[in-house]
Amino acid sequence: MKILFVSPDPKPERWITPLQAALPDAQWIAWHAELPPQQADYALVWQPPAALFEREPGLKAIFNLGAGVDALLKLSALPPTLPIYRLEDAGMSAQMAEYLLHQIAEITRAMPVYRQQQQQQIWKMQPPCRRQEWPIGFLGLGQIGHKAAQALQLLEYPVACWSRSHKQIEGIHSYTGTGELAAFLQNTRILINTLPLTPDTAGILNQTLFVQLPANSVLINVGRGQHLVEQDLLEALASGSLQQAVLDVFAEEPLPATHPFWSHPKITLTPHISAPTLREETIRQITDKLKALAQGQPITGEVNRQRGY
Amino acid sequence: MKILFVSPDPKPERWITPLQAALPDAQWIAWHAELPPQQADYALVWQPPAALFEREPGLKAIFNLGAGVDALLKLSALPPTLPIYRLEDAGMSAQMAEYLLHQIAEITRAMPVYRQQQQQQIWKMQPPCRRQEWPIGFLGLGQIGHKAAQALQLLEYPVACWSRSHKQIEGIHSYTGTGELAAFLQNTRILINTLPLTPDTAGILNQTLFVQLPANSVLINVGRGQHLVEQDLLEALASGSLQQAVLDVFAEEPLPATHPFWSHPKITLTPHISAPTLREETIRQITDKLKALAQGQPITGEVNRQRGY
Repeated sequence: MKILFVSPDPKPERWITPLQAALPDAQWIAWHAELPPQQADYALVWQPPAALFEREPGLKAIFNLGAGVDALLKLSALPPTLPIYRLEDAGMSAQMAEYLLHQIAEITRAMPVYRQQQQQQIWKMQPPCRRQEWPIGFLGLGQIGHKAAQALQLLEYPVACWSRSHKQIEGIHSYTGTGELAAFLQNTRILINTLPLTPDTAGILNQTLFVQLPANSVLINVGRGQHLVEQDLLEALASGSLQQAVLDVFAEEPLPATHPFWSHPKITLTPHISAPTLREETIRQITDKLKALAQGQPITGEVNRQRGY
Repeated sequence: MKILFVSPDPKPERWITPLQAALPDAQWIAWHAELPPQQADYALVWQPPAALFEREPGLKAIFNLGAGVDALLKLSALPPTLPIYRLEDAGMSAQMAEYLLHQIAEITRAMPVYRQQQQQQIWKMQPPCRRQEWPIGFLGLGQIGHKAAQALQLLEYPVACWSRSHKQIEGIHSYTGTGELAAFLQNTRILINTLPLTPDTAGILNQTLFVQLPANSVLINVGRGQHLVEQDLLEALASGSLQQAVLDVFAEEPLPATHPFWSHPKITLTPHISAPTLREETIRQITDKLKALAQGQPITGEVNRQRGY
């Protein structure tokens, strides 16, 4: 069995060595633009070039090294029936929960004020956070946001979600479909976007949505940059319908140095680090799935091309 | 029934009005230094002066407006058999969990680096946090730290605790007694102190303890300032046995403006805000207990004077 590792990672041996150790029967090969055809069986991919699919028509399936497959599905060279498996959790949901809890505490617990007070040697308690003033709403609540929703409930925040299908999660109010979006937004003050990017969800974070939130709401976007209409965000921050935005994803990454988001006083931004792929967990998950496939067993995480995630 | 409210809060009516509404049959009185004796039945106290106990010998019990009673127990005027009830949770454990998760993410997720990168328009991912490199140990794990321990487990950190009595909490390794302190410290990298302050625990955060932690450990003190030997902390930060300290409590509060902690590059400090008393939750808890007492029912939260908490 031949398996390709296809990634812009400048040190592919960081992956190849432990992959070979985890599944020694397979022949693991780091793919690059000059590599002749290998007649490979599988490929682990992150941002694969079109040339991969032209040179390797015999692939039986590919494994994406991340949860979101929106960029992959846009590749015209992608064979239409090739099975794609996305990364499932692999430590990402715990990291996402930690990132979100941290960013929320920054806002509700006035942490930047306390940092400034320390610099100025000021001992002053800020008003405590009353949870009922900060209802949290997840726009989309799949595997990646599940732990965050649980942890925020444990911290006694009111938590709701809005999604395509009804979610049965204890203590979380589940809103469903376009008919219930307005009610969801009216009852949300911290809006967290964890939707997958599809033609239906692109541009969903726009003016029409922002004005339905209560005044002084907060947007946290950890979905995809293309969910957000950037100009509408700037206007919502200027008008006060949003008091703050936390952005981890952008339409263009890296975010260009001239972009107005960098220095906006009401925007906190991070370079797509809310839930990074963890190498060990990822290698364990994918090699376990390859072993199961070899034994003819079913595996989870296949992307539904129709649905787009 | 006469009940006194005894607190340095400059606006006691913020408490008296809702207390009166919650328990209208009682007569609620804001105590002050010039108030003549009231023959009161109960008192809600925060940092009460000795004069209170001299003028009100008929008190049947007092309710402390916080979890820690160390300062209260030191008052020589405190009648030796007067029952004292501490505040139990009342929203404090959720706030404590949030504070701790935030401070831990600051360190393990390199959040100060990302803030600086935003200012400099730098798009650069820092190495991801591998949970197994950050085992967390609670020194003392009572009501106030319980939710934090649960939430940190949910975030997939290894969590252990050291306490007087064995704790049976799923997934948490419980170390007990002085004999197991060394093993606990060797297996802890983020040490969180939530011990009550007693003659046994005062000064426990000292050089002897710090050198038993792995190199580059982190101390988070949310117990009491008197747990910490300040000079020993400065030396541990200088030698590198500690890489960072987060302090919310101090031997002298407010921390004097000339104190070296304010500007220490390896110390993050906050003005005793990790788990503030929330008025509504506190009023509900104490008035519920007063109603139970009036009906002859037992109530929880009585301080064991012998034990000191």
